[in-house]
Amino acid sequence: MATIGVIPGDGVGPEVIREAVAILEDLGAAHGLGLEFSSFDLGSDRYLRTTEVLPDSVVQDLARCDAILLGAIGDPRVPPGVLEKGLLLKIRFDFQQYINLRPVQLFPGVETPIKGKGPEQIDLVVVRENNEDLYVGAGGFTRKGTPEEVAIQTSVNTRAGVERCLRYAFDLADRRAKARVFRGLSDDDRSAGRRGLVSLVAKTNVLTYAHDLWNRAFEEVARDYPSIKTDYHHVDACCMRLVVSPERYDVIVTTNMFGDIITDLGAVLQGGMGVAASGNLNPERKYPSMFEPVHGSAPDIAGTGKANPIAAILSIGLLLDHLGAADAGNAVRSAVKRVLADPDGPRTPDLGGSGSTSEVGRAVREAIGRG
Amino acid sequence: MATIGVIPGDGVGPEVIREAVAILEDLGAAHGLGLEFSSFDLGSDRYLRTTEVLPDSVVQDLARCDAILLGAIGDPRVPPGVLEKGLLLKIRFDFQQYINLRPVQLFPGVETPIKGKGPEQIDLVVVRENNEDLYVGAGGFTRKGTPEEVAIQTSVNTRAGVERCLRYAFDLADRRAKARVFRGLSDDDRSAGRRGLVSLVAKTNVLTYAHDLWNRAFEEVARDYPSIKTDYHHVDACCMRLVVSPERYDVIVTTNMFGDIITDLGAVLQGGMGVAASGNLNPERKYPSMFEPVHGSAPDIAGTGKANPIAAILSIGLLLDHLGAADAGNAVRSAVKRVLADPDGPRTPDLGGSGSTSEVGRAVREAIGRG
Ligand SMILES: CC(C)[C@H](C(=O)O)[C@@H](O)C(=O)O
Ligand SMILES: CC(C)[C@H](C(=O)O)[C@@H](O)C(=O)O
Repeated sequence: MATIGVIPGDGVGPEVIREAVAILEDLGAAHGLGLEFSSFDLGSDRYLRTTEVLPDSVVQDLARCDAILLGAIGDPRVPPGVLEKGLLLKIRFDFQQYINLRPVQLFPGVETPIKGKGPEQIDLVVVRENNEDLYVGAGGFTRKGTPEEVAIQTSVNTRAGVERCLRYAFDLADRRAKARVFRGLSDDDRSAGRRGLVSLVAKTNVLTYAHDLWNRAFEEVARDYPSIKTDYHHVDACCMRLVVSPERYDVIVTTNMFGDIITDLGAVLQGGMGVAASGNLNPERKYPSMFEPVHGSAPDIAGTGKANPIAAILSIGLLLDHLGAADAGNAVRSAVKRVLADPDGPRTPDLGGSGSTSEVGRAVREAIGRG
Repeated sequence: MATIGVIPGDGVGPEVIREAVAILEDLGAAHGLGLEFSSFDLGSDRYLRTTEVLPDSVVQDLARCDAILLGAIGDPRVPPGVLEKGLLLKIRFDFQQYINLRPVQLFPGVETPIKGKGPEQIDLVVVRENNEDLYVGAGGFTRKGTPEEVAIQTSVNTRAGVERCLRYAFDLADRRAKARVFRGLSDDDRSAGRRGLVSLVAKTNVLTYAHDLWNRAFEEVARDYPSIKTDYHHVDACCMRLVVSPERYDVIVTTNMFGDIITDLGAVLQGGMGVAASGNLNPERKYPSMFEPVHGSAPDIAGTGKANPIAAILSIGLLLDHLGAADAGNAVRSAVKRVLADPDGPRTPDLGGSGSTSEVGRAVREAIGRG
């Protein structure tokens, strides 16, 4: 028995979540997972109607779920930060979802915009710290609105917060090194050559306080994993290398802000926002974890049936892994892989096709059904 | 009469600077600029020999120069931050070089790693704020070295500092819109379609203090430039778009930290670090400005003759513009363009050739000589 809290959210959110939930229902039945769904009306509509973003009572209801599935939030009519801080970041922080797990894997049949790279070269995972750094909301103004105004924003990094994130990354690299099949990414036909490497991405030469802590913690944690290789990349160099030689990465561990930036670049490598999944994890499962496509609410295509549901569908793969149902998670990934590899399979416009959200969703369901 | 302070620096720095200075000497003579050169022994050798990074007396000598040409600094034997903060950032800050100007232009004959993009699509300029943000060095530790350690790092943004940067960006967009030939980038054969656009790149939805100031200042400054279009991109989305649709950018204005990141990505688009130039500008010319290739000291190839001098050479193009010698600056860019467009011209290994640093430098000198 597990309860899935569903927040369809804004824009294309409800459209992609519909497909993801249909697949979860199928898989829950087939694998005897006893899934129950509880839907939450949160996002810009509720805010614009009631000025409520995330009432405490709703936080308590969400806390009782085993996992949360989020579509997307964001609406041009809502001021920047209101929903992001009040809803998305609040859930990430309140539920101690201190890992933002973002696999960057190019599936066969999907085109990357980078020359000369294919599925063999693009297969890494970003472990983004998700509870600290510039995201804590620390800062303020002085003399606001005057020519003398000063605005500050502070990155807060704790040894404990950084270390738990680093340990997660090393454990993940260890699992990837040991198993050619890693359930967080699945699949059996990839090169195992670069496995067992954790790359720290930071800016130690400029952020000499915050990233000195990161660097020291990294070196100390690394000592507990003698079989895992490590290296270090400045964030600027990393952005370059992600494009020029993505094959040099296995597991990247990085700060919240830098992780935000490099995972959008990662999404490009793997074929775009339409296929990029993520999990906001509380690894101890003391609180519910939250799974969401990396893409936003995309108001420009909302309601047109053009949104790609693959990112949301791959996110439920991560959700199933997290709930301990790796077989079901692998079934999702394997089905997505077959649909994308099929030259006659439906695909949405972002992947160069003319299929609709629901056609792609149905194709994945059918592929799961065929096993 | 103008004095150029030359800091060859570390690794490949002296090798690329040698070529750049030879060209500056030629051009100085040909254009009657009366250039004098003054060389400064700064960088890791001096630090390792004497523990001196940038003595005050040297700062005073540098202050008397009209412009500074820097090769690169950085050495694995020096702890992170020592030379960066003590030398590079100190010069940028002490001399109020508040603009870091980084043109991103793909020259014909240079390959970009992005599919389907050519010189028509890749032609933008990043105006990076260069004196504030996380680069001010504000921060600290508490309980350092214990499990309770906290490290903070603070981004400081002033209205005056942000506004002068924004105004520079709008003025630049205005010049680009008015002249198909923009001296900071040169050349006459590009599309003028997307001219007159300033894009603010920030993260207003998370950095709700620092980037609220940026956003308000941006909107206010924009009112003074009614003929310039504006738009806004979150930094994560910008990284994606730089790869997928670089043609949507003309002038990007952004913070110091985000500018650091997106200009490395920009360098990739234009063919790599070997061709990316930059100027650290004090636009009022109250203090000397500093010009440097975006690349680092590249200790792995130092001494092998493999370093590409084009980035350093294009940096002297920016230097000449800044000194008011736009004709000489255009001569540099036009010569570089001809050398790169020549299929039989020499090119260094980073651009797929087998030419050496000095062969490329000589080819550019000869091309300038031919006029
Ligand atoms: C919407 C925004 C607050 C969020 C973030 O910055 O984390 C998004 O960009 C993401 O990556 O999930
Ligand atoms: C060396 C480093 C301090 C510098 C920066 O971060 O500005 C470099 O990356 C650059 O972009 O010029």
